[in-house]
Amino acid sequence: MYDMAAFLQTDSDKCLYEQIYEHIREEIKGGKLRYGERLPSTRTLADSLQVSRNTVDFAYEQLLSEGYIEARERRGYFVCKLDRHLPESPAFVESIRDVQREEEKKYAYDFYPNGLDMSVFPFGVWKRINKNILTDSNTELFSLGDPQGDYDLRETIVRYLHASRGVNCTPDQVVVGAGNDYLLLLLEKLLGRHIRVAMENPSYKRAYRIFNSFAYHVETVKMDQNGMRADDLKTKDVSLAYVMPSHQYPTGITMPIGRRMELLKWAEGDDNRYLIEDDYDSEFRYKGKPIPSLQGVDKHGKVIYIGTFSKAIAPAIRISFMVLPPALLEKYKKDCGFYASTVSRIDQRILNEFIKDGYFERYLNKTRKLYREKHDLMLQKLKPFQKKFQISGEESGLHMVLTCKDKKITEEELVQRAAEADVKVYPMSAAYLTCVEKKDAVILLGYGGLTLPEIEEGISRLENAWGM
Amino acid sequence: MYDMAAFLQTDSDKCLYEQIYEHIREEIKGGKLRYGERLPSTRTLADSLQVSRNTVDFAYEQLLSEGYIEARERRGYFVCKLDRHLPESPAFVESIRDVQREEEKKYAYDFYPNGLDMSVFPFGVWKRINKNILTDSNTELFSLGDPQGDYDLRETIVRYLHASRGVNCTPDQVVVGAGNDYLLLLLEKLLGRHIRVAMENPSYKRAYRIFNSFAYHVETVKMDQNGMRADDLKTKDVSLAYVMPSHQYPTGITMPIGRRMELLKWAEGDDNRYLIEDDYDSEFRYKGKPIPSLQGVDKHGKVIYIGTFSKAIAPAIRISFMVLPPALLEKYKKDCGFYASTVSRIDQRILNEFIKDGYFERYLNKTRKLYREKHDLMLQKLKPFQKKFQISGEESGLHMVLTCKDKKITEEELVQRAAEADVKVYPMSAAYLTCVEKKDAVILLGYGGLTLPEIEEGISRLENAWGM
Repeated sequence: MYDMAAFLQTDSDKCLYEQIYEHIREEIKGGKLRYGERLPSTRTLADSLQVSRNTVDFAYEQLLSEGYIEARERRGYFVCKLDRHLPESPAFVESIRDVQREEEKKYAYDFYPNGLDMSVFPFGVWKRINKNILTDSNTELFSLGDPQGDYDLRETIVRYLHASRGVNCTPDQVVVGAGNDYLLLLLEKLLGRHIRVAMENPSYKRAYRIFNSFAYHVETVKMDQNGMRADDLKTKDVSLAYVMPSHQYPTGITMPIGRRMELLKWAEGDDNRYLIEDDYDSEFRYKGKPIPSLQGVDKHGKVIYIGTFSKAIAPAIRISFMVLPPALLEKYKKDCGFYASTVSRIDQRILNEFIKDGYFERYLNKTRKLYREKHDLMLQKLKPFQKKFQISGEESGLHMVLTCKDKKITEEELVQRAAEADVKVYPMSAAYLTCVEKKDAVILLGYGGLTLPEIEEGISRLENAWGM
Repeated sequence: MYDMAAFLQTDSDKCLYEQIYEHIREEIKGGKLRYGERLPSTRTLADSLQVSRNTVDFAYEQLLSEGYIEARERRGYFVCKLDRHLPESPAFVESIRDVQREEEKKYAYDFYPNGLDMSVFPFGVWKRINKNILTDSNTELFSLGDPQGDYDLRETIVRYLHASRGVNCTPDQVVVGAGNDYLLLLLEKLLGRHIRVAMENPSYKRAYRIFNSFAYHVETVKMDQNGMRADDLKTKDVSLAYVMPSHQYPTGITMPIGRRMELLKWAEGDDNRYLIEDDYDSEFRYKGKPIPSLQGVDKHGKVIYIGTFSKAIAPAIRISFMVLPPALLEKYKKDCGFYASTVSRIDQRILNEFIKDGYFERYLNKTRKLYREKHDLMLQKLKPFQKKFQISGEESGLHMVLTCKDKKITEEELVQRAAEADVKVYPMSAAYLTCVEKKDAVILLGYGGLTLPEIEEGISRLENAWGM
């Protein structure tokens, strides 16, 4: 048995137990102490090191728990068998610095279709609610909540949906989740594998990519001015159709009631058929009242309604929800009911009070007013464009669609010329799921995230860039 | 053309446009106005109703946008073809009330293995950080963040993981998500379909159920006192192994370094093999220092490390994270990089400051002290049990494992007798993934959620109930 005394440094900032532990560990890893070799008894070592027995016990405990040594009854401690090529824990290279977050080129004027205006968000209110909720008396909020979301919030959502969107459901049908993407991940578990899903073309690319990541087969369905064509849908071998009836992205089409009934009829044609209604920014409408939801007229449990507060309140509020028809609800409870909620109960509680106390409605009205001003300014500023462009999708949402009448001009040209004027515009073609036969040059102009002066200047630049 | 004047009520609280819109809509739905029938021109109707032209225009707009009528150029407005059996929007039955939330029976003393003690949680600090963050100057927090999680938080997590768990990674490898369940959903997209995964038995049932919901085939692997047996694992046709090396649930086994190396060697045997390291409550250890993570000794990118703040801070804090090895990180960026983050940036920011400013470390130390007291009291109170039970899994975590030496007694009996004393205890068998040949009666006693007096009384009751 070798003498350990040498290595002990009483002046070291490491405690003695740690020094003993580390020394023996290194001896073992270094091969100086070999497999099966017997270690001194704790008493012997304690004596030889002039340290308390506990110190050695503690060091041995650590070596035991990490599996460097083992205790054999009444025989003492022995070195365990280790993989010879035990890797050293690699040094922590400060590689953090190296990692670059690629920064996108910034434009002076970015007509991003999903841009939002947070300027009128009632941070004060949000803070106050937040503050009142985070009291010691609310410690239960720090415990894990209902997988479907807290009942109070679901009840509030049900009332809100019924009043504002004509959705008919019970809190039991509502599943709250952190964003639409997550809800679609859950839906995959309910709908199963190898699903063939119908989508409009162009459509919401994110949903398309998500379906692809599910290895779902996406069939694109022909559109007309009323959205997805039911007659074409009937010819497709699909069991699921993904639609945005109140405001199709990116075309901005609102699906008329007649077409909605046709889609529902298609779904009723087979037990396994469902419609996913993505009620994408239905909150913002500039003509007439909001269109009631497809779910509201569905009498046979064919519609999976998906909505989110990320757009109406703030993208960072990761709270979306879906309303499951009875058949899928049953399956959810059986197969997915155990998935833990992805939304903090605190956020759920804040949102619940934000809605219940009427702040949400007030905020919505403010933003509607705000976006209407921008919407009207857009239309006014775009008047000169009407020679060269047809403007559509302006009745709702936060972007407009400009279709170029001049067949010789390409989207690329328009985007490029805008870019040269430091203005970013978005080509419709980016929203095509599958390449389509030569289409017109179509540009999307989002105005939600721009101020009125920015819209003013941005459109003026486009006017010059595109030579109106 | 019929006379509409009759229905207009100037004393109604409904605005005129709404009355006109609703009246015509009902006429159409009721069949009084038939498909193809021509509506009066807006001018004519305005005159006959003695209302402004705009009022009628607005009503027609609404009917147009909802698809009840259509405009034919230079010919006026006509009733559209509708599905005859257009369903009425069903009345909003107050069915909310009917929905019952099933309440579980409450016990006076519940030794829930996942119980936590939030009594020392620094609500004040959390509130202050929260308050400071929710300022108008931080509006960017309300925008959607990086899908992987905000960089600052990932950087903080990396430093924390390295310091406390010996994990070696860059922020680029970290994916932040709302809970482990969600991260596993993402992992499925990376690992693909038809995966065969090895798990210990007993193990963490939730992970098992999640793998099942993926239609993954789960193979149970034999265990010994060091956890999953590598020799048995080698005989299984699996490409994935799910382990909790620092503290296996429910047995509480800590996997020695030697065994860890064996598992890594197995994984290195094939490019598609990976180990999922669920670093389940590694924070709470009562003997020796925390065991460094498996990821920390992995030199060949074979370990997917999953950790969470839900346990160390609070279950409601829905922030977990995984560290992806390079190969999977690449796949993630290619196939799943677009999935929107499931964690609000506000929560990410709060957590980031909570950790960076040292509150997390302080809180951890407080809870460790707290749980150690409970741990020690448990051991002391359980002394009389040692005749009849073998106690294990007490070196870490928040629960202990009692194995009954008397082969004649069943788990059911023990649970039942405890229940009669209004004490809830948890049978090990609930954690078995597949039924196993007759096993001993094993009980899990969690103490995290109980106060010291509750532990005192709860164990005393068990002592009587089980006749120690």
